[in-house]
Amino acid sequence: MFVIVVYDVDVERVNKVNKYLKRYLFWVQNSVFEGEINKDLMDKMMSGLSKILKEKDSAVVYIFDGFRIERKILGVVKGFTDNII
Amino acid sequence: MFVIVVYDVDVERVNKVNKYLKRYLFWVQNSVFEGEINKDLMDKMMSGLSKILKEKDSAVVYIFDGFRIERKILGVVKGFTDNII
Repeated sequence: MFVIVVYDVDVERVNKVNKYLKRYLFWVQNSVFEGEINKDLMDKMMSGLSKILKEKDSAVVYIFDGFRIERKILGVVKGFTDNII
Repeated sequence: MFVIVVYDVDVERVNKVNKYLKRYLFWVQNSVFEGEINKDLMDKMMSGLSKILKEKDSAVVYIFDGFRIERKILGVVKGFTDNII
């Protein structure tokens, strides 16, 4: 599956999140990563990322598996609550 | 088509870009917008956004039209150069 991760975290944790996401995905731009990933690694990445996020941190993960676009939000929900777009 | 816009602009232009993108899409999170948009409005949005971006500003636009995922970059290219993912 193809995923895009966009994070919005406290400046203290930016480097930690960057380093962590680089293990799984490619850096695109300020706070944006993307890449192809299988389900097992995806689950591992989501679980690890959840543990890094604190307080008002937030990450939006877009998952593209064929026609269906799924949105998962880790940390604080800032904009939307629906999981399926 | 469904689009995601992620921008990375100088702090001076954050409000301007936010206000502009709100005309076309929904705000998701810090520097991220998304929404369904038709081709005409998409072209208009891209053209207007290009005019706002200056210097080292950058915006990545992901376009999802069925199975194909297209990436367009406005402003400075920071990560990738391929247009089709």
